[in-house]
Amino acid sequence: MATKSREVRLKSRPVGLPEASNFEVATVDIPDPGPGEVLVRNEWMSVDPYMRGRMYDRPSYVPPFQIGEPLQGGAIGTVVKSNDPKFAPGDLVESFNGWREAYVSPASGLNKLPAGVPPQAYLGVLGMPGMTAYTSFHRIGEPKAGDVVFVSGAAGAVGSAVCQIAKLRGCTVVASAGTDEKLAWLKSVGVDATVNYKKGNLLDNVRAAAPKGIDIYFDNVGGDHLEVALEVARPFARFIECGMISIYNDKEPAPGPRNMSYVVGKRIKMQGFIVSDFADMRDQFYTEMGGWVRDGKIKWEETVENGVENAPKAFLNLFSGGNTGKMLVKLG
Amino acid sequence: MATKSREVRLKSRPVGLPEASNFEVATVDIPDPGPGEVLVRNEWMSVDPYMRGRMYDRPSYVPPFQIGEPLQGGAIGTVVKSNDPKFAPGDLVESFNGWREAYVSPASGLNKLPAGVPPQAYLGVLGMPGMTAYTSFHRIGEPKAGDVVFVSGAAGAVGSAVCQIAKLRGCTVVASAGTDEKLAWLKSVGVDATVNYKKGNLLDNVRAAAPKGIDIYFDNVGGDHLEVALEVARPFARFIECGMISIYNDKEPAPGPRNMSYVVGKRIKMQGFIVSDFADMRDQFYTEMGGWVRDGKIKWEETVENGVENAPKAFLNLFSGGNTGKMLVKLG
Repeated sequence: MATKSREVRLKSRPVGLPEASNFEVATVDIPDPGPGEVLVRNEWMSVDPYMRGRMYDRPSYVPPFQIGEPLQGGAIGTVVKSNDPKFAPGDLVESFNGWREAYVSPASGLNKLPAGVPPQAYLGVLGMPGMTAYTSFHRIGEPKAGDVVFVSGAAGAVGSAVCQIAKLRGCTVVASAGTDEKLAWLKSVGVDATVNYKKGNLLDNVRAAAPKGIDIYFDNVGGDHLEVALEVARPFARFIECGMISIYNDKEPAPGPRNMSYVVGKRIKMQGFIVSDFADMRDQFYTEMGGWVRDGKIKWEETVENGVENAPKAFLNLFSGGNTGKMLVKLG
Repeated sequence: MATKSREVRLKSRPVGLPEASNFEVATVDIPDPGPGEVLVRNEWMSVDPYMRGRMYDRPSYVPPFQIGEPLQGGAIGTVVKSNDPKFAPGDLVESFNGWREAYVSPASGLNKLPAGVPPQAYLGVLGMPGMTAYTSFHRIGEPKAGDVVFVSGAAGAVGSAVCQIAKLRGCTVVASAGTDEKLAWLKSVGVDATVNYKKGNLLDNVRAAAPKGIDIYFDNVGGDHLEVALEVARPFARFIECGMISIYNDKEPAPGPRNMSYVVGKRIKMQGFIVSDFADMRDQFYTEMGGWVRDGKIKWEETVENGVENAPKAFLNLFSGGNTGKMLVKLG
C-alpha cells in the first residue's frame, strides 16, 4: 500500500538570492519497501548554506540539484516498515533524504542513531555542523590555549559550536553576528567579546574586540569579514575557510580582499575544506563532543519551521540572518 | 688607517614605484677593526623584491629602512683584516651588509663560505633565494611526482630554482614570465610549458598550458596571476605565497581575487612564509641543493650591474622585469 509524501523540488535555478518561486511542493506515492529496503517517515530535516551551491549548474564537490527533482539534505526519521534485519519499526535513523516527508531507502543508506539526546541534535551539534566545527577547528586551526579566535557567522550552527569548542580549549573568542539578540546568546554561552557587523565600522569594532589581534579566524562569510581578519591577523594566523555566505548569491563575482599581501607578510595559512575531508576524526568527534553535550558544556539554539512546505522559507532565512543556531524544519 | 667606502642610503621613501631619486650615494670612512672585529671588502651584493617592503615606514617582519641610513641586504665579501682568530685575510664571507663597498663587523655577524662554486652563487641558488625556493616548495607545496606546478615570476632567482627543483621531483612545470627570451631560457632548463603574461589573456593561456589544472601554485606576483591560479586549481591545491611583486608598489590597495570562494570549494591551502621560518631545513638544503648545483642539475642565470652606484638601478630593474635569474651588483 503506497504512502503519500510531500516533497520540495527545485523548480528553477536561483539567480542571486533564492526566492520562494524557485521551489515547488509535490505529493508523491512512496511504494512499500522491497527486500533489503526500509520505509522511513522523517521527523526533522536540515537546511544549510552549502545547499545554495548545489543550486548552480556547475561542477563542484557535490553534484548540482536537478530541476524538477526533490532536493536533498540531512534528515532524521523513524522507521515505519523494514524489510532488512538491521532495522525495526521505531528505530531512529539518519539519512541524506531530507526535503520530503517519507521515503524508501536501501538499508545501506541509513544510519541508526542512539537515543539519549533530542533527535534533532544529530542535525546540529552532533551532526554535520558540529563535526564541521570540531574537525576543522582542530585540524586547520591547530588551537593553543591563549589563542585569540575570531568567528564570523558565529550564531549559526557551525559558528556557535566553534565558539564553545574554542572556549573549552582555553582560547579567547571574539564572535561576529548580525543582531544584538544573537550576540547576547553568544555571551551567555561564554564568548569573550562580540561584534554586531551591521553596526558601525567592522574593522574598528573587531580591533576594539580583539586589541591584540587574532590567531585563528573561522570564516563562514568571506567578503568584508575576510578582509578585516587579514588586517587584524597576527603572524602565523590560521584561517579556517568553512564558507563565504556573503558572496554565495552574488550575480557578478565581487572583488576579493584588498590586503591579500598580508598572507605573505604575516605568514598566514588559509585553508578550505569540507567535512568529509576529516572523516577519520569521526570517532574522536562522537566521543569528545558527545561527552561535552551530555555534560551540558556545549549548548545550542534552534530556529524551527514546521512542515515540509515551509522548508524553502527556512532555507531563505539563512541568507537574511533569520536564524539563531541551527535552522531546522520539523516534519513529524 | 681608515678605509674609504661608498654606500647607498635611502634618501626618501618611495611612493608607488621606486625611483632613482629615492636613493643617494655617500662616501664614508671605515675605521680599522677593533678586537673581535673584521674588515671586509664586498665583492657582490644582492637586490631583492622584499627590500621594497622595508622602504615603507610600517611594522613588518623586518624593521623598515631609515632615511639617511645605508640600506641592508645580502652580500659576499673578502676579509681584508681580521682581529678575530676565526677569520683570516682572503676568507670569503657572507653578511647582511650589502649596499656598501666595505665594512667592519663583529666576527659573529659573518658566515665563512667554502670555495668550489662561484662566490655569487651564495646570493642565488645556494643563498637566500635558493633556500626560499627549496624549503617552501617542500614544506608548503608537499610535492608528489606527477603534480602540475605553476610558477609565476618564473625567470627570477627564486622562481627559476622552484621550476628546476619541481622537475627534479618528477612534477610537470608551467612557468610564467614577461619576455619570450626568459621563457626560452626556462624551456632550456626543462620546464614543460610557458606563458608570456604580457601577451593575450592570462587565464586562457594558463588553461592551454595546464589543461588538467594545477596542484601547486608558487606565487611570486599576486594580483591577476593569483586569480588565474585559483581558477585553474585542482582540489586540494597548495598555494605557496612567496611574494606579490605585482602589488608592492600600489599606491591604493588593489582589490583581491574575485574568486576567493574557490579556497572553500576546492579545499585549497594558501600559505605565506619567510625563509627563516624553515631554518631547520638549512642542512638538508645545503646537502641536496649543493649536490644538484655541483652535478649541473640546477642551472642559473645572472643579470649583473657593476659598481655600488648602480645598485639602485639594479633594484629598480626588478620591478620592470629587467632581470633574468638572479639580479646582482658586482662591487669588487
